[in-house]
Amino acid sequence: MQEEKTVTKEARPGNSKAIVIFKPFGTVANVEVGTLLLDAAQLAGVEVNSPCGAQGRCGRCKVLVEYGEVARRSNPKLSSADESQGYALACQTVIKGDVVLVVPTKEEIQRRPAIETAAEKIALPFVCDWRREPAIQKLYLEIPPPSLADNTNDLDRLKRELAKRLGIKDLVVSLPMLRGLSRTLREADWRVTVVLDMRNWLPGGSIPPRLIGLLPDDETSTNLGLAVDIGTTSVVVYLVDFITGKVVDTASAYNAQVSCGEDVISRIIYSQRRDGLNHLQRLVIKTINDLITELAGHNHIHADDINEVSVAGNTTMTHVFLGLDPKYIREEPYIPTMTVPPRVSAGDLGLAINPNASVYCMPAVGSYVGGDITSGVLSSGLFQTDRLTLFIDVGTNGEMVLGTKDWLITCACSAGPAFEGGGVRHGMRAAAGAIEDIWISPQNYEPTYRVINNISPAGICGSGLIDLLAEMFVTGVIDKAGKIRRELPTPRVRMGDHGPEYIVAWAAETASGNNIVITEADINNLIRAKAAVYAGLSVLCNSVGAKLADVEQILIGGAFGQYINVEKAIQIGLLPDLPWEKFHYLGNTSALGAYTALLCKDMRAAVVDIARKMTYLELSADNSFMNEYTSALFMPHTNLEASLR
Amino acid sequence: MQEEKTVTKEARPGNSKAIVIFKPFGTVANVEVGTLLLDAAQLAGVEVNSPCGAQGRCGRCKVLVEYGEVARRSNPKLSSADESQGYALACQTVIKGDVVLVVPTKEEIQRRPAIETAAEKIALPFVCDWRREPAIQKLYLEIPPPSLADNTNDLDRLKRELAKRLGIKDLVVSLPMLRGLSRTLREADWRVTVVLDMRNWLPGGSIPPRLIGLLPDDETSTNLGLAVDIGTTSVVVYLVDFITGKVVDTASAYNAQVSCGEDVISRIIYSQRRDGLNHLQRLVIKTINDLITELAGHNHIHADDINEVSVAGNTTMTHVFLGLDPKYIREEPYIPTMTVPPRVSAGDLGLAINPNASVYCMPAVGSYVGGDITSGVLSSGLFQTDRLTLFIDVGTNGEMVLGTKDWLITCACSAGPAFEGGGVRHGMRAAAGAIEDIWISPQNYEPTYRVINNISPAGICGSGLIDLLAEMFVTGVIDKAGKIRRELPTPRVRMGDHGPEYIVAWAAETASGNNIVITEADINNLIRAKAAVYAGLSVLCNSVGAKLADVEQILIGGAFGQYINVEKAIQIGLLPDLPWEKFHYLGNTSALGAYTALLCKDMRAAVVDIARKMTYLELSADNSFMNEYTSALFMPHTNLEASLR
Repeated sequence: MQEEKTVTKEARPGNSKAIVIFKPFGTVANVEVGTLLLDAAQLAGVEVNSPCGAQGRCGRCKVLVEYGEVARRSNPKLSSADESQGYALACQTVIKGDVVLVVPTKEEIQRRPAIETAAEKIALPFVCDWRREPAIQKLYLEIPPPSLADNTNDLDRLKRELAKRLGIKDLVVSLPMLRGLSRTLREADWRVTVVLDMRNWLPGGSIPPRLIGLLPDDETSTNLGLAVDIGTTSVVVYLVDFITGKVVDTASAYNAQVSCGEDVISRIIYSQRRDGLNHLQRLVIKTINDLITELAGHNHIHADDINEVSVAGNTTMTHVFLGLDPKYIREEPYIPTMTVPPRVSAGDLGLAINPNASVYCMPAVGSYVGGDITSGVLSSGLFQTDRLTLFIDVGTNGEMVLGTKDWLITCACSAGPAFEGGGVRHGMRAAAGAIEDIWISPQNYEPTYRVINNISPAGICGSGLIDLLAEMFVTGVIDKAGKIRRELPTPRVRMGDHGPEYIVAWAAETASGNNIVITEADINNLIRAKAAVYAGLSVLCNSVGAKLADVEQILIGGAFGQYINVEKAIQIGLLPDLPWEKFHYLGNTSALGAYTALLCKDMRAAVVDIARKMTYLELSADNSFMNEYTSALFMPHTNLEASLR
Repeated sequence: MQEEKTVTKEARPGNSKAIVIFKPFGTVANVEVGTLLLDAAQLAGVEVNSPCGAQGRCGRCKVLVEYGEVARRSNPKLSSADESQGYALACQTVIKGDVVLVVPTKEEIQRRPAIETAAEKIALPFVCDWRREPAIQKLYLEIPPPSLADNTNDLDRLKRELAKRLGIKDLVVSLPMLRGLSRTLREADWRVTVVLDMRNWLPGGSIPPRLIGLLPDDETSTNLGLAVDIGTTSVVVYLVDFITGKVVDTASAYNAQVSCGEDVISRIIYSQRRDGLNHLQRLVIKTINDLITELAGHNHIHADDINEVSVAGNTTMTHVFLGLDPKYIREEPYIPTMTVPPRVSAGDLGLAINPNASVYCMPAVGSYVGGDITSGVLSSGLFQTDRLTLFIDVGTNGEMVLGTKDWLITCACSAGPAFEGGGVRHGMRAAAGAIEDIWISPQNYEPTYRVINNISPAGICGSGLIDLLAEMFVTGVIDKAGKIRRELPTPRVRMGDHGPEYIVAWAAETASGNNIVITEADINNLIRAKAAVYAGLSVLCNSVGAKLADVEQILIGGAFGQYINVEKAIQIGLLPDLPWEKFHYLGNTSALGAYTALLCKDMRAAVVDIARKMTYLELSADNSFMNEYTSALFMPHTNLEASLR
């Protein structure tokens, strides 16, 4: 590394600054002595994984100190062997002088082809009148230039023309828009395309359309919007053509905030660090902007032509995206700053599109039922059905909604990160190298598995874990309580360093050259997660006097929902034992809802109505939840009959 | 100067950077070789007078090059003697290497006591219902904190309380306001003062109040606003108490833009330089902020408690204040970007008050009849009178309005800077050392004068020039055409270097040790200025079929109007020869109108109505104006009878 030469090998007494070099990037930071390694990395723009939110709990921010002096806080996640090799936890170690660090390369961020839902398959779930009353309207005007005899000012001249063409009486024009008005009109020789945001315009009402763009010449042939799903793990964007109503293209990537914590709680903890909230906001904006750049490049469009954005995300993601402090979401009684976010300009958030474009976030119900769920209820059609319907979105949290067009009730249960590969020894995200399907032979207990991208396995993702749990249960590798049957005649069951374990892949087969195993502790985490979801479903039904068997259809949303095997999920008791035909996988209902609300003015109002009318059941205040949870800590349940009562 | 030691005396070949030192400030700038001296000064934050807007026409940006090499463009304002002494025009000279400059100290900016209208004298011209329906309302709330059983989000909780207290249904909350909401509510233990902007709130209407402040504890005992008059030359601010309706205090200062040009045309020219518009905007914002700091200090208030601002200024001043390009105001057909400026947040403009405070600029009629005039029509009561009334505001431009409560017609004539001391050899602003009153003896033609602050005279200000012209005319020093009677038996009349002149003050009496004179060329400039104003008045009357004699009252506004002597102004034909009792001096009608609109919601609507209903007469498109102007180029007029026809 060239940069290494800049380091002086002598200690520099009396100097409170230190140089930090990050290998293999060669990035250099100049920091105060006493700075946390993680903060130095953030300053240098080097991404160091920190899934637990810099709490020293996960041990994943391990870096190698190749040169220099640091002070480590003792931590169970760092063994003395690690330490003697020079490893340190970035979130628990401070810099004492000039140092050279080696940052391990991250899990390769590779998209599963299935995440990229083919754009042409995406269709609006409803018939909307977006062609008759488009929210974003482009209009080409040839305006008579001013003269001494007709010296109306530029703004009123433009309004006069719009009144003539559209019958509108007034126009909202922000100061930044106004600043370029006179020059653009003249440079374009009074032939311009206006971009109007009619979202708030009620005919005869008092909220006038908003001028969000003024372009030279006739630019009415393109008019684009963006629907964004900000997941805790992944961000998905749909590029939408307002003229055809079609999704032009989609793109997705990991939410760059993942480096600051894997779940919302870790993100909230991270947001309380100095500059933490701003950093998280910058990361998600950068993720979205990178996706916009990618889409613009692939589709030969100008990002400036994107004139409206609709965003769905859970309550914490929405808060952070808007720069709102999520602190109180985590503290009892779990109160968000708001549930219906205000209109915001893209420029105020730093989105690299038309800076005057409106950004609307889907409304939330509460701290743990967010815009992703209201978006799902919208796009799933649950809010319009006569049939008793259950909508489930399982991720780190399990959110569920029960209802019909007349009423909606919802709750959220903290499933923990197990179904997303967290809290499980060899769990991982659904990325290349993850085992996603497993079968176990009932004869010899040998597994057969499938790996994403067909490479050597590196770990097991959520759908693989559900499969594994179900297969171990039905083949008798584990009992109802999740205990591994140590007496089984297979070398795959044994006592490992971390207690009893089942070996899924031998060292020789794996990417790391180590066995991939599942331990009894892992199994307990998974059982607790499924018990939480099932208990939530039970309590939700009980609360309205219904039985799970009364539910006429079960709609499964969320990216995770796309990959789970309903048969296996029923076997472990994650989903209720109902006829398969009642289950429907809807794909990314959060992104689909954002797309729906982007294109249809009425649906924007509908989703606010959905959020307002949904009753939120707080499980932590519900005694029956603990009972249901305890009885669900077995596979599939303590009492099968009881579960469908 | 310490900084001088940093200059290397050797030329530095191959180096395209140069160090510029400004004496007597000791400020240092590091600039590219080839930079204009004026730009270097701007970079260094050194104010160099440039009244003509850096066009090389006024010669007032003269600086002394004490050391180093510069390249001067030849310019009639710089004599070869000047040049040999080392002088250069900052706007016409580029830097060739390291230089040391001496910047002459500026005219001492000293306020005339009379500008500081005693705050207690200022009273609203109208009875307003501001106590019953205040625009800015503070309200102390004790909000029940959230619980698991009552988990409404923070924003809706606040709205719920406001609905209970004020019956309002919704609230506009900007993203920056929302960002601090949750933390403030909790840190204040749910006991807060809300600041609401009800300006746009129509009971039963659809525009909800705007949340502009949230303060811990009960802060309802103070509630302040600011009325600002941005003049081309001076800025005046009134600190207004919304609780008593009184003006608490006033302050004024020269508009710091004066260093970039004395009149609006020079400012517009300056605005077209690189960063010119931003620089001008920063200067006026700084002027206002300095006055706010002064008022806050004197009155022991927090500037953050200022919750609304009302601004009156001519169209160019308003454009520049808002950062709008004034370019097309100057180019035929003289079109401003807008006449009714949008609501802007104080924070967006950089005003050092509550950043969420609304800033409203008074509406204009056109490019040359601005918010200062509509503000004057408002505060003068012209828009409510039955009597035929003429409102005149004379400065660099003369703006006049004729009308009653039923109709209003207006025009503007370019009087030139003569009445403000510009374009006159020994003219100066109304600052310390200016001759402001003059009498001439009809026996021996000896003058008696009064000087602002009773010091040795340095020049003659506008009111002094009007006096001088009138006295010279009535005593026969000049004839009807403005020619000096060279045959008079007095040494004060003589042929000077610049043609015939009258000596007002001998060298021994003056501050500079040079004679203060008025030349025939100066007199011609003054006559042209008064002719333009008078011709404007005539055309205005003619256009509605009225005679000047029909006018029932003449209201004189503007700071300049306060000091002119009506008798003398009639003698020279600047004002029509009507009975003195018809004339009324109203003081700073522009600031008074801003104050009126700040305190009274109805008056804000009234002034927009005034601007909309005023008919603008474009004099440059009017043939009769040239005729009137030509016949007014005599004193008092060509035909006294005709003038009152």
